[in-house]
Amino acid sequence: MLNPVSAALNADELIKMALKEDISNEDVSTNAVISGYVKGEVQLICKQDGVICGLPVFERTFKILDDNTLFDFRVREGEEVKKGQLLAIITGDIRVLLSGERVALNFLQRMSGIATYTRETVKLLKGSKTKLLDTRKTTPNMRIFEKYAVRVGGGYNHRYNLSDGVLLKDNHIGAAGGVKKAVEAAKNYAPFVRKIEVEAETPQMAAEAAEAGADIIMLDNMSVADMKEAIRLIGGRAQTECSGNITKDNISAILETGVDFVSSGAITHSAPILDLSLKNLRPLEEK
Amino acid sequence: MLNPVSAALNADELIKMALKEDISNEDVSTNAVISGYVKGEVQLICKQDGVICGLPVFERTFKILDDNTLFDFRVREGEEVKKGQLLAIITGDIRVLLSGERVALNFLQRMSGIATYTRETVKLLKGSKTKLLDTRKTTPNMRIFEKYAVRVGGGYNHRYNLSDGVLLKDNHIGAAGGVKKAVEAAKNYAPFVRKIEVEAETPQMAAEAAEAGADIIMLDNMSVADMKEAIRLIGGRAQTECSGNITKDNISAILETGVDFVSSGAITHSAPILDLSLKNLRPLEEK
Amino acid sequence: MLNPVSAALNADELIKMALKEDISNEDVSTNAVISGYVKGEVQLICKQDGVICGLPVFERTFKILDDNTLFDFRVREGEEVKKGQLLAIITGDIRVLLSGERVALNFLQRMSGIATYTRETVKLLKGSKTKLLDTRKTTPNMRIFEKYAVRVGGGYNHRYNLSDGVLLKDNHIGAAGGVKKAVEAAKNYAPFVRKIEVEAETPQMAAEAAEAGADIIMLDNMSVADMKEAIRLIGGRAQTECSGNITKDNISAILETGVDFVSSGAITHSAPILDLSLKNLRPLEEK
Amino acid sequence: MLNPVSAALNADELIKMALKEDISNEDVSTNAVISGYVKGEVQLICKQDGVICGLPVFERTFKILDDNTLFDFRVREGEEVKKGQLLAIITGDIRVLLSGERVALNFLQRMSGIATYTRETVKLLKGSKTKLLDTRKTTPNMRIFEKYAVRVGGGYNHRYNLSDGVLLKDNHIGAAGGVKKAVEAAKNYAPFVRKIEVEAETPQMAAEAAEAGADIIMLDNMSVADMKEAIRLIGGRAQTECSGNITKDNISAILETGVDFVSSGAITHSAPILDLSLKNLRPLEEK
Amino acid sequence: MLNPVSAALNADELIKMALKEDISNEDVSTNAVISGYVKGEVQLICKQDGVICGLPVFERTFKILDDNTLFDFRVREGEEVKKGQLLAIITGDIRVLLSGERVALNFLQRMSGIATYTRETVKLLKGSKTKLLDTRKTTPNMRIFEKYAVRVGGGYNHRYNLSDGVLLKDNHIGAAGGVKKAVEAAKNYAPFVRKIEVEAETPQMAAEAAEAGADIIMLDNMSVADMKEAIRLIGGRAQTECSGNITKDNISAILETGVDFVSSGAITHSAPILDLSLKNLRPLEEK
Amino acid sequence: MLNPVSAALNADELIKMALKEDISNEDVSTNAVISGYVKGEVQLICKQDGVICGLPVFERTFKILDDNTLFDFRVREGEEVKKGQLLAIITGDIRVLLSGERVALNFLQRMSGIATYTRETVKLLKGSKTKLLDTRKTTPNMRIFEKYAVRVGGGYNHRYNLSDGVLLKDNHIGAAGGVKKAVEAAKNYAPFVRKIEVEAETPQMAAEAAEAGADIIMLDNMSVADMKEAIRLIGGRAQTECSGNITKDNISAILETGVDFVSSGAITHSAPILDLSLKNLRPLEEK
Repeated sequence: MLNPVSAALNADELIKMALKEDISNEDVSTNAVISGYVKGEVQLICKQDGVICGLPVFERTFKILDDNTLFDFRVREGEEVKKGQLLAIITGDIRVLLSGERVALNFLQRMSGIATYTRETVKLLKGSKTKLLDTRKTTPNMRIFEKYAVRVGGGYNHRYNLSDGVLLKDNHIGAAGGVKKAVEAAKNYAPFVRKIEVEAETPQMAAEAAEAGADIIMLDNMSVADMKEAIRLIGGRAQTECSGNITKDNISAILETGVDFVSSGAITHSAPILDLSLKNLRPLEEK
Repeated sequence: MLNPVSAALNADELIKMALKEDISNEDVSTNAVISGYVKGEVQLICKQDGVICGLPVFERTFKILDDNTLFDFRVREGEEVKKGQLLAIITGDIRVLLSGERVALNFLQRMSGIATYTRETVKLLKGSKTKLLDTRKTTPNMRIFEKYAVRVGGGYNHRYNLSDGVLLKDNHIGAAGGVKKAVEAAKNYAPFVRKIEVEAETPQMAAEAAEAGADIIMLDNMSVADMKEAIRLIGGRAQTECSGNITKDNISAILETGVDFVSSGAITHSAPILDLSLKNLRPLEEK
Repeated sequence: MLNPVSAALNADELIKMALKEDISNEDVSTNAVISGYVKGEVQLICKQDGVICGLPVFERTFKILDDNTLFDFRVREGEEVKKGQLLAIITGDIRVLLSGERVALNFLQRMSGIATYTRETVKLLKGSKTKLLDTRKTTPNMRIFEKYAVRVGGGYNHRYNLSDGVLLKDNHIGAAGGVKKAVEAAKNYAPFVRKIEVEAETPQMAAEAAEAGADIIMLDNMSVADMKEAIRLIGGRAQTECSGNITKDNISAILETGVDFVSSGAITHSAPILDLSLKNLRPLEEK
Repeated sequence: MLNPVSAALNADELIKMALKEDISNEDVSTNAVISGYVKGEVQLICKQDGVICGLPVFERTFKILDDNTLFDFRVREGEEVKKGQLLAIITGDIRVLLSGERVALNFLQRMSGIATYTRETVKLLKGSKTKLLDTRKTTPNMRIFEKYAVRVGGGYNHRYNLSDGVLLKDNHIGAAGGVKKAVEAAKNYAPFVRKIEVEAETPQMAAEAAEAGADIIMLDNMSVADMKEAIRLIGGRAQTECSGNITKDNISAILETGVDFVSSGAITHSAPILDLSLKNLRPLEEK
Repeated sequence: MLNPVSAALNADELIKMALKEDISNEDVSTNAVISGYVKGEVQLICKQDGVICGLPVFERTFKILDDNTLFDFRVREGEEVKKGQLLAIITGDIRVLLSGERVALNFLQRMSGIATYTRETVKLLKGSKTKLLDTRKTTPNMRIFEKYAVRVGGGYNHRYNLSDGVLLKDNHIGAAGGVKKAVEAAKNYAPFVRKIEVEAETPQMAAEAAEAGADIIMLDNMSVADMKEAIRLIGGRAQTECSGNITKDNISAILETGVDFVSSGAITHSAPILDLSLKNLRPLEEK
Repeated sequence: MLNPVSAALNADELIKMALKEDISNEDVSTNAVISGYVKGEVQLICKQDGVICGLPVFERTFKILDDNTLFDFRVREGEEVKKGQLLAIITGDIRVLLSGERVALNFLQRMSGIATYTRETVKLLKGSKTKLLDTRKTTPNMRIFEKYAVRVGGGYNHRYNLSDGVLLKDNHIGAAGGVKKAVEAAKNYAPFVRKIEVEAETPQMAAEAAEAGADIIMLDNMSVADMKEAIRLIGGRAQTECSGNITKDNISAILETGVDFVSSGAITHSAPILDLSLKNLRPLEEK
């Protein structure tokens, strides 16, 4: 997602907006005490164990302010990092280092928080064939960064938005006049490139959806017993997704059902940040 | 912050961007099954105890899609809400209710999460004169919403961004050649409308800042003993801010120091969302 | 695609840009001779037989200039229209009718041209199970309108863009090290909501793609004999798409192969417009 | 029009929008199989005889994605090209070559189609003094590219938009109270830099316009006999434009009238594309 | 220029930007003391004699904040106003009246200042056939408002920008290889809708330009004697413009030359504002 | 304000908009006579004594068009310049020099005009402790440039906009129910980073504001006698600002009052431009 094409087209504008949110006309403090170019360097330090994610975004934040800023990264995207670890040295105009610091960290901390939380959740699935999915419960205007962080953390992406996936919920089904008619309508409207997913609240509804030709069936808030029954009735005719509410206590029972995917909103909407810091800024002699 | 002027000028654009993030060309599912206008209503239900915040943003999200959407709110902004409580009934074009749901909830859940977490933290300060401040550790492109949520939760706002407040950190002080020179430079650059805040790492530095005429002194990661000493040395010549790391365990000791403000990044960057849901969507007969 | 939600979020901005392209600071001619509000009406007349498409866009063009403009449509979107037929009467400020005319017609003529051309092509497929697909060969910044026009004309949409569909071409396959590895990589990267389509140049490659688990296989520039062989080898394990070069002469042979879809770039990139005109503008007495 | 200034100010934004239209968040196929930088080259091949137009736009499309992409053009803008001819070799990051291909071609094919169609039409005017003009019947948000393509094809530009030319049509004339009053109003409103053009439906109206001091008179849908009479009555007092409906059959009669300009909407709104293709993409060893 | 179409397309965006420049996140003062809707009214008072201009822009400024704001204008656009005169009463949400005041006045004062200064200059031309023109020496991003104000003041507009008028200066002439070649190049590039203006520094150059077929000739910084000679040599073959440096002292001599137009940069770039004020804001009882 | 960070984030967009205002699709004159790259240079000449301001904006204007344009500045920002002085030599593509000239000068002339006028006003304050402040009476969408020019001229900035400073005027005070309540409300709403300024119309009101804890008190249109009395009553408890109407005649009396600041709207809204010119453009041989 953050290959150079996506960075140029999709990420830069959001990063620039965030910079303008933080600097609506000038950085008063920096302008008050630093009147011209001073070369300097600063260290990116980890203050908490976790998974680092968002280094390309961190880098773009400073480069948007000054393309001459240089980065010496000591870790790779997605690597596990330890409290106290030196992650990178950034070299450039001290005014740029000071003015870009907070926004660069706000992105990096949040993305790393999500990658860290995702990886912890993925570990609970180890040994099963079940995969972890994210949801659309992302922070407004942060989806491109948050869904990428999920992938760096080892999760997989559910549909990106309402335009690229069909998910028929109870209201759609009601409007269409039943599961069968809803699936038919969807297959008629979008017969080609899209899979059709149907949300089922009971094993019977799941069976009906499989019968109607759904590609994926979401088992919505079912008990473990109902999930097992639903999966039995579906009988491999569709992929299955178990929606939400996975905890350490119920995880092993869920995995036993053999569901293909579990989706979690919490990995994007409630992951705490990973604490990171820019430290030891110092001026450098120009050679 | 969310009076009608701010809504028109500052919030609507971000809400619209979030909607476009979720609907880059169309809502395929809805378009597949609903081909024309159907009037309907849906209920906003609380799924967790907390503080509700963001109702005007929730409302704008649907109104941007269709100005004819109607809202019957059963709670007021900032009110404490209970699991299971009916918060609002929204009436309008069912396609609008379906297509706007996720974005409206993503805003409302996050803002309510911050207001809830803030109010819990504010309660820890009860009985003291100390006030809770937020920081610039907000989610990129969400600051206007998150700082507002802090206020609804009972906290106060630190500077909005780098353009509207002067905060001289160690690097600024180093660049200027000492606390005294830094404060002088800031007072010369911005003598009029802005308070000058200085970050102090030791009681001596705090004393020096007070001597130099700082309006506010931030006691940065000091021990409680050092904070007491710093406040004694400042002697009322400046307001004092204790930065971060407030916990249930150390809070009473901190409050005893008589510090004017404590600031917390966690209230914006690590508050979990408040769980909310749109339920019971149903078509209405047009009268 | 052009339900009210998409209009508000996705179409209005493009329509407004087109209006600004045509009026970069003022409509000199109109301002020179009409100094204030005059109510008037004008007729939308068809000058050529075809399929009308884009009426909501036509309407939005004038409404963006003045929300009080009124429309009395005499045809429905997608209807077949005849040379000389009265399609609509538009009533409003004469300055708005004059200034918006060209842009409104530029949209309507192009969209109707595509719908007309599409419907003619669809008729060639009649009696077979084969469906007509569009491509990404659309006019830059017109895709939302052109893909919608294809649907109004009776065609179906291939993927909307590079973000919502996986299509592995020879270069992707080469980079991955073969069809099997490419499909595996795609299934690993995007296991959930997206179908995987593979472009095959020979029947053998088609068979390999089916074996690898491709959901759709594009038969790229194959002879009819090769297409038949490819479809036989695929054996129902994947949907099939025949890419391009469909003509009146070869169509019956292609349809006999039983291919599921044929895709055509020409329906969007080379459809001539449908000739339409605003006529008989006249001032109205205000009552 | 596509000198570097116009490219930077007026074209780049539209090209970037078209790229975002095609890549709303990422190029899934490319990201699935290519995880890092691979240098490669690809050939631009002509698949149909015609006039090549839009090479600077084609180049900017890739450069916006990655400024390091290199172009070795084998033809010059506006040159006649042949089926099978190698037009250019493009070298750069393979991900950029894959992700930018469709948008770059969509521009180039459409612009070349217009230039080709225009040149064919211009050839019909050979031997006469009559010049070919375009109209405002361009594709929305493509005018800058389409009017440029007309010029590359050998045509001339009519007014760019409603802001830079005065053209008084029957409705303007009616509103002003006659040709004389309309021309007077226009000369009073815009006496300086703009020519005043008047649309005339009869020879008498043309004479009246010449009398009133019109700089240009458009002979709107007149018979050849009426055109001759109109031009005789105008007697060199104004330039003359014959509007539309020029065909191979009536062209020689029209040219005999000695009209100064003929204008054609078809050259922009109904030109089929020129078929072009990127072929033979292959990875390159880095030296 | 400020008919409703231009307002919607061209002015609103600039007005909104100016509002955001003044309210980057909220109006702190108003939000601190006024927590909800209060209806009120305020008076627009003239503090200096002059010409009022910009009332539609003044109105849009408040309407963009709140469409329900009402205006009772006591003067018409372009009217002469006196110190102390009541110009309008504005009624609406007091928060909107307070937050929009400064931006609305900044537009109105500047536009009225230009209209006032223009009218004074126009009076100097009274009795002659010479007309006053503006230039492109306008304030960046204010041209649409400033050129309109010139017209309200009684002046005429020179070309709007570099895209809608041809003016060949010495550098263009040098690049083309002489006046004759430059005019030929321009007539070849833009033969149709645009007049060709040539800047001449001597009577001989003016004669040469007339000979070459220039439509307008600018007499650039010539003495009155040279202007007379130039106009004699041109002999009615082209319109004439005298550029700049018109003062009370030399005006009568210039007018005697019979030049068609004099252009002045000062009317837009150095007009002082007209002093205006919002006064007597008071809350109203809702009926 | 115009350090590289502000240039990248806040100024470039406005400069680019101004360029597009002047070149909505192409520079016709330049395109007509110059068909390709020609290297050239041009001189920036001063035509009037004053203070030069805006050189970085002048430079960015050309660099936005072509990053390869080179600048050899012979003066420093803020320096006093003389009529006839050579200020800079600019080297680059002649088309860029021609197309960017007017916009670059429009910025530079206006900013230099403000800096010149400000410095003249500052000289009147010499020998006193009183400082000169600007106001929010700036040209719409030019504030970032105009407030910077004030500082270059030797003045100081009042609040940037409504979001970064609290100023309680009579209407705010009325709405709050008196000075005391208004100051309390403001201190409660914004207790931390902002100073509270109160507008006082009488010495008694000034005393009341000081009593209520205002940080700054604006003495609004008071007589010199009243100002003295107000300052006496304030007694050093708050900073004082004298608003407007400072003239050569009353200046010495005002300075004697010992007021801390005088603010002037005229320095931004009514400063005439400083006359500057690009001259002697000539092509250069490429070496």
